[in-house]
Amino acid sequence: MSAFGPEKAEWQAGEWAAAICRGDRPALARGLNLIEDRRPSERVHAARLLRALPEDRLRERGHLVGITGPPGAGKSSVAAELIRAWRRDGRSVGVLAVDPSSPISGGALLGDRLRMLQPAPDAGVFIRSLATRGQVGGLSADVAPMSMLLLCAFDVVVVETVGIGQTEVDVALHTDTICLVAQPASGDTIQFLKAGVMEIPDVVAVNKADLGAPSRKAAAEIQGALARDSAGWSVPVVLVSATEQQGIDQLATALEQHRQWLADQQRLTPGRIAQRGRWCLKCLRDEFGSFGLEQLGGEQQLLAQWSQQKRSPYEYLEELRGRLLARWNQTRS
Amino acid sequence: MSAFGPEKAEWQAGEWAAAICRGDRPALARGLNLIEDRRPSERVHAARLLRALPEDRLRERGHLVGITGPPGAGKSSVAAELIRAWRRDGRSVGVLAVDPSSPISGGALLGDRLRMLQPAPDAGVFIRSLATRGQVGGLSADVAPMSMLLLCAFDVVVVETVGIGQTEVDVALHTDTICLVAQPASGDTIQFLKAGVMEIPDVVAVNKADLGAPSRKAAAEIQGALARDSAGWSVPVVLVSATEQQGIDQLATALEQHRQWLADQQRLTPGRIAQRGRWCLKCLRDEFGSFGLEQLGGEQQLLAQWSQQKRSPYEYLEELRGRLLARWNQTRS
Repeated sequence: MSAFGPEKAEWQAGEWAAAICRGDRPALARGLNLIEDRRPSERVHAARLLRALPEDRLRERGHLVGITGPPGAGKSSVAAELIRAWRRDGRSVGVLAVDPSSPISGGALLGDRLRMLQPAPDAGVFIRSLATRGQVGGLSADVAPMSMLLLCAFDVVVVETVGIGQTEVDVALHTDTICLVAQPASGDTIQFLKAGVMEIPDVVAVNKADLGAPSRKAAAEIQGALARDSAGWSVPVVLVSATEQQGIDQLATALEQHRQWLADQQRLTPGRIAQRGRWCLKCLRDEFGSFGLEQLGGEQQLLAQWSQQKRSPYEYLEELRGRLLARWNQTRS
Repeated sequence: MSAFGPEKAEWQAGEWAAAICRGDRPALARGLNLIEDRRPSERVHAARLLRALPEDRLRERGHLVGITGPPGAGKSSVAAELIRAWRRDGRSVGVLAVDPSSPISGGALLGDRLRMLQPAPDAGVFIRSLATRGQVGGLSADVAPMSMLLLCAFDVVVVETVGIGQTEVDVALHTDTICLVAQPASGDTIQFLKAGVMEIPDVVAVNKADLGAPSRKAAAEIQGALARDSAGWSVPVVLVSATEQQGIDQLATALEQHRQWLADQQRLTPGRIAQRGRWCLKCLRDEFGSFGLEQLGGEQQLLAQWSQQKRSPYEYLEELRGRLLARWNQTRS
């Protein structure tokens, strides 16, 4: 039984959040719908729900994995195999599949997504698509709060998206570990890495290892392109074959090792806090522009303030929005 | 002799604009510097200068060509050869070389740029680099006004940038003709085209035609990926070799044919007007966010208003900015 929804949100936010933490699917699905709702009344409810999520889970729990790469590299198949590996290991998995936005044609990768559904039905796997059609400039601002909800409900949260350059940078800014899926014929990917157009991923999976020599060659070239300092983490390049189910366990291990490294280096929690601070700034910038950020004291000051407080990012965001709106609305009278 | 500058701008904007139209390089260089200047006082001067540019030139003159593609495809070498072809044809060329931004590492493609300098010294060629380091989300808002200045001074204006996805969409929104430079090993590019992550270019140059069969194969695959309706323009795929100087004249012809097609279809001037309207909205969105655009009546209404007026985009932008700032500043008292 689950009957959580904004219409009753006022007294139920805590219960609703608790249901999400227990993995109650209808509660989670309604929570995700609420985040996508643009109406001001629903924004208030969403803020209330997100505020009710337990901070310790958001700061320390689970693993936020971004999976990115060009279309055709087999991201979805690799993700599906990773999900199977995590499930065998007893971990629950939530997936946010992000459709690339395009202001002209609109991207439609539904077929790509549907292949991800392969491991279902399984109560330990939850998949949600997030269309970003028409949105200009990188990832939707909904990705961060949605992944917070999923983080409370699942052991591993995957954000899957297509793109190179801006999109991929945005995913990196909102996840703990970024996994780039490349394919043997990935000349462009290698050039992007070399030229610094693409950021350094934390783990690289070269798919289609069943092709033999070409994938080993691509792996060596990518390893070469990666030969840059990455704050002490040596980026593993793993050969995988989603179709032959090869190398998937090694890939899962590499991802887990990166999470462990973050934790050992005391980077996991500060990383999560910074992710959420950047999300606040992104929302403010989308809504009020650089002028709005300046009126609030500027980006640096806002980030510094944010890192020193214990509040939820939604509370902080709503307070900052409230300050700007109150000042603007003074002019109405 | 040229001594134009903001310190004397008040009475000289018309003269300064006239000097730019004559191709006076110091006047042009100072104009470009002025556009990059973020100080409010300089913004006023920039608005004044751009307002003084002759509307007919901006609406009908010359050819704004975007050159994009992944790094390593040889964009800069192809651009350099195109410049030579245009120069042989007696046309002057202004180039805006845009450095891809990256909020983490900062992109540095200086070597790539320097190769473009090959055709210089030549009074009919002008090259300007535009760093966009630290800017999040696609192309700098400076590209549009800078290309307006160049359009007044040169027959062909090239905007060269690296990227796939958002960057490339942004260039397409601000140029007449977009030329994608691909290379034989362009599996990712083809996948991006097929998946609709990349917009349809107007002309494709497959470089490294000296490689023979692989480039013919890539050209055929790209032609296949392009098999979509593009409003009546059939996208030519031209095999070129920058190193062997092959196919460059055909490429120049294809670009010119696209401009002719735009003119024949009565699309050139409406396209230019729309480019500049989008630029206004982009500036407003960057500065005041979605909230600011809403306060002004919303994006659709603003674009409709813009298309019905004869003013310069800078005047329109400054008026809209002024309205928002006046309202905001009321609250100070």
